[in-house]
Amino acid sequence: MSGRVDEIRVQLDQINLQILELLNERARYVQEIGETKQKQGTMKFDPERENDMLQKIVLHNDGPFDDQTIQHLFKQIFQASLTLIEDNHNKGLLI
Amino acid sequence: MSGRVDEIRVQLDQINLQILELLNERARYVQEIGETKQKQGTMKFDPERENDMLQKIVLHNDGPFDDQTIQHLFKQIFQASLTLIEDNHNKGLLI
Repeated sequence: MSGRVDEIRVQLDQINLQILELLNERARYVQEIGETKQKQGTMKFDPERENDMLQKIVLHNDGPFDDQTIQHLFKQIFQASLTLIEDNHNKGLLI
Repeated sequence: MSGRVDEIRVQLDQINLQILELLNERARYVQEIGETKQKQGTMKFDPERENDMLQKIVLHNDGPFDDQTIQHLFKQIFQASLTLIEDNHNKGLLI
């Protein structure tokens, strides 16, 4: 493998860890929203807010990923976040 | 909605854009690897390298997302990157 490919692989590993950190930072904020809403007794999932986030994201998308791919990836992140707070909620019910 | 939830939503929007930027930065590097490998006539997909990246990522995962969720999200990112360079390759064949 050429030296340039090796260099890029180092960059990719670093970017992966930065994405990982942001995903978990994001998840902690989502957990906090989930806990606050739970105390308030309001619904946890807000499809309008999800669409609003997606619109803001796509508005800033300069590629190379197309908008559809970016939306797909973020929907996966939103879904994982939702599962996380649902799990926390269910665990809470068991205590 | 309480003030704290609004504050967190601002944070989430900022984190979304940071993730977006990293995803596209990552995609540009993957495209460069794809082009280099294409010139060299080597295979584009390397499952061993993908597993290596996943291991490094999971090793650094402190949650709250569990390892399985993180692996799922990154596999989606890897898949999207692969589709991107395959599309580029196919477009190249058409010129």
